[in-house]
Amino acid sequence: MLMSFDLPQPPQESDPVTITAQQVLLKERPTGLTDDQTWEYVSTDLPELEDGQFLIQIDYLSIDPAMRGWLNDVRSYVPPVQIGEVMRALGIGTIRESRHDQFAVGETVVGIFGASDYAISDGKDVTRADLSVADAPTWLGTLGMPGMTAYFGLLDVGKVQSGDIVVVSGAAGAVGSAVGQIAKANGATVIGIAGGPEKCKWLNETLGFDAAIDYKNESVSRRLREIAPKGINVFFDNVGGEILNAGLANLTIGARVVICGGISSYNESKLPPGPSRYMSLLVFRATMTGFVVFDFEDRYPEAVKQISSWLADGTLISREQVADGGIKAFGEALQLLFTGGNTGKLVLKV
Amino acid sequence: MLMSFDLPQPPQESDPVTITAQQVLLKERPTGLTDDQTWEYVSTDLPELEDGQFLIQIDYLSIDPAMRGWLNDVRSYVPPVQIGEVMRALGIGTIRESRHDQFAVGETVVGIFGASDYAISDGKDVTRADLSVADAPTWLGTLGMPGMTAYFGLLDVGKVQSGDIVVVSGAAGAVGSAVGQIAKANGATVIGIAGGPEKCKWLNETLGFDAAIDYKNESVSRRLREIAPKGINVFFDNVGGEILNAGLANLTIGARVVICGGISSYNESKLPPGPSRYMSLLVFRATMTGFVVFDFEDRYPEAVKQISSWLADGTLISREQVADGGIKAFGEALQLLFTGGNTGKLVLKV
Repeated sequence: MLMSFDLPQPPQESDPVTITAQQVLLKERPTGLTDDQTWEYVSTDLPELEDGQFLIQIDYLSIDPAMRGWLNDVRSYVPPVQIGEVMRALGIGTIRESRHDQFAVGETVVGIFGASDYAISDGKDVTRADLSVADAPTWLGTLGMPGMTAYFGLLDVGKVQSGDIVVVSGAAGAVGSAVGQIAKANGATVIGIAGGPEKCKWLNETLGFDAAIDYKNESVSRRLREIAPKGINVFFDNVGGEILNAGLANLTIGARVVICGGISSYNESKLPPGPSRYMSLLVFRATMTGFVVFDFEDRYPEAVKQISSWLADGTLISREQVADGGIKAFGEALQLLFTGGNTGKLVLKV
Repeated sequence: MLMSFDLPQPPQESDPVTITAQQVLLKERPTGLTDDQTWEYVSTDLPELEDGQFLIQIDYLSIDPAMRGWLNDVRSYVPPVQIGEVMRALGIGTIRESRHDQFAVGETVVGIFGASDYAISDGKDVTRADLSVADAPTWLGTLGMPGMTAYFGLLDVGKVQSGDIVVVSGAAGAVGSAVGQIAKANGATVIGIAGGPEKCKWLNETLGFDAAIDYKNESVSRRLREIAPKGINVFFDNVGGEILNAGLANLTIGARVVICGGISSYNESKLPPGPSRYMSLLVFRATMTGFVVFDFEDRYPEAVKQISSWLADGTLISREQVADGGIKAFGEALQLLFTGGNTGKLVLKV
């Protein structure tokens, strides 16, 4: 049979052909921000499917702050990506070929398929996405890992209650924007911290936050004292550094500080100083708790169901920013996260 | 009636005389360590008792690390001591005169009577001490605030369980030595961190700790990795700084970090950097919680009963260091705490 296509095409089951995947490999560990030296873009012939495997054509890659941490050769909640390995990445795509009895050709699936345009999976930790509920990018955002992170981090770790004052940093990001809206849906008063007037306007006017603090132009600590003079019940932190410190200085008795991330330090080659105000935990009898969303995997369906219903009735607004340029734009897209260039969930169209 | 005594004496109810108290006032807020400029020693005539009051002759004052914090003019869990005020201090003494229907002359009582040899109280937050159970200094130590702090901090905040690996810093202090022994009594493996070989020897040989790390002569982080390669379940911190950091770097999944104090920073005029390893809370899904023992006041009797029984059967060994020199030695005694000069509970004999 003559193949007349330039691009890799889904093969027929009866007639397997070699799929050449475009992949992003880790070439060199960055010491600060990632750059051109960090990545190597390669074409790799994928092996033939074995029984229990399926082939996914990836439509969108999730671009996440956590990716930066995966590049450091340190003990963490997941092993570091190794030099020469395909970069770890969540993606959403379509099954093009299957030798797995649970996954059929044509299904849309989400999983850690790596930074690639095609991938082979054995179905482990792969979930289905119903595109009649939401578009593919939303399944990487509000209905994906960031949404799960916001949902369980706020409700289970932060134990938010009606009447609470909730402050979220990185509020215009994928996790932060969901945290604020889920807090509102639970009867809390919500203050968002974000960079720049545009993001703050979006939080106030579109997402219905009660207040927004522009950390690039305002003193976070002073504004928190003004807006919440009695203190904060829940501080959901994605940022770390001086913003976490400002939160700690303005707690109320019994407050919960949720450590979800610390983007301000992800690109530092030396560990920056920790929160000098940590003794506020004693003064306020407060708790600072870290979590990893994977621990809540068994309960993802509960969160997906609730968030889908909030999306349907307008309680929750999901925003995604789609970076173009295909797989070769992966490095550039990742940098956007650390320059404050994105609002909402950042995905890369493959 | 002719008074033939030079020293203040307990008056007869029928014949009130003026009691002159020797008191320690806060003269000047210290910026670093306290010194001679910090305190003013004065004689003050106490007023006559009113109905509902009683007069205490104070036998021992409790000398506590927390005292340093009470001198700073900042919002905290108690108001700062004001310039010209009697220094806040816990004490144990004997009731010499009473117009209170719940407290009788001759009873031994514990309360925040201030740094003084005589004080008047209305009975609020005053508890009785049974000297047949333990000597007066022990009622300021293992059966007093430090014992309560260890008991509730370890069991309620740290949620220690049999089989846990518990690490306590400031382990040779009043709180730390009780924490380690209570942890042992609950089936935990206990590692103490203290300064100098003598203190470490005491922890190992007398108190039965499983291991002791001499932070003045050993790398705490490296020793923790050696002794507890699988990580720590409970880190009970009295110290802060690099010792807290070493604890954070060596947690295990679901660990509890209890923030009881931070003596390493109490004398710093500028807030030192916080724990750079705080993101370990995320990696290990761990919790860092602060507490104030006063919140457990309703349950002190439970702790006193349990600790008394442990003291009686030898499960718990209490050690007190009694500073002499009377009320005028108050400033000197306090300095001992910050130079590592004490082992066990430090009290001042009035």
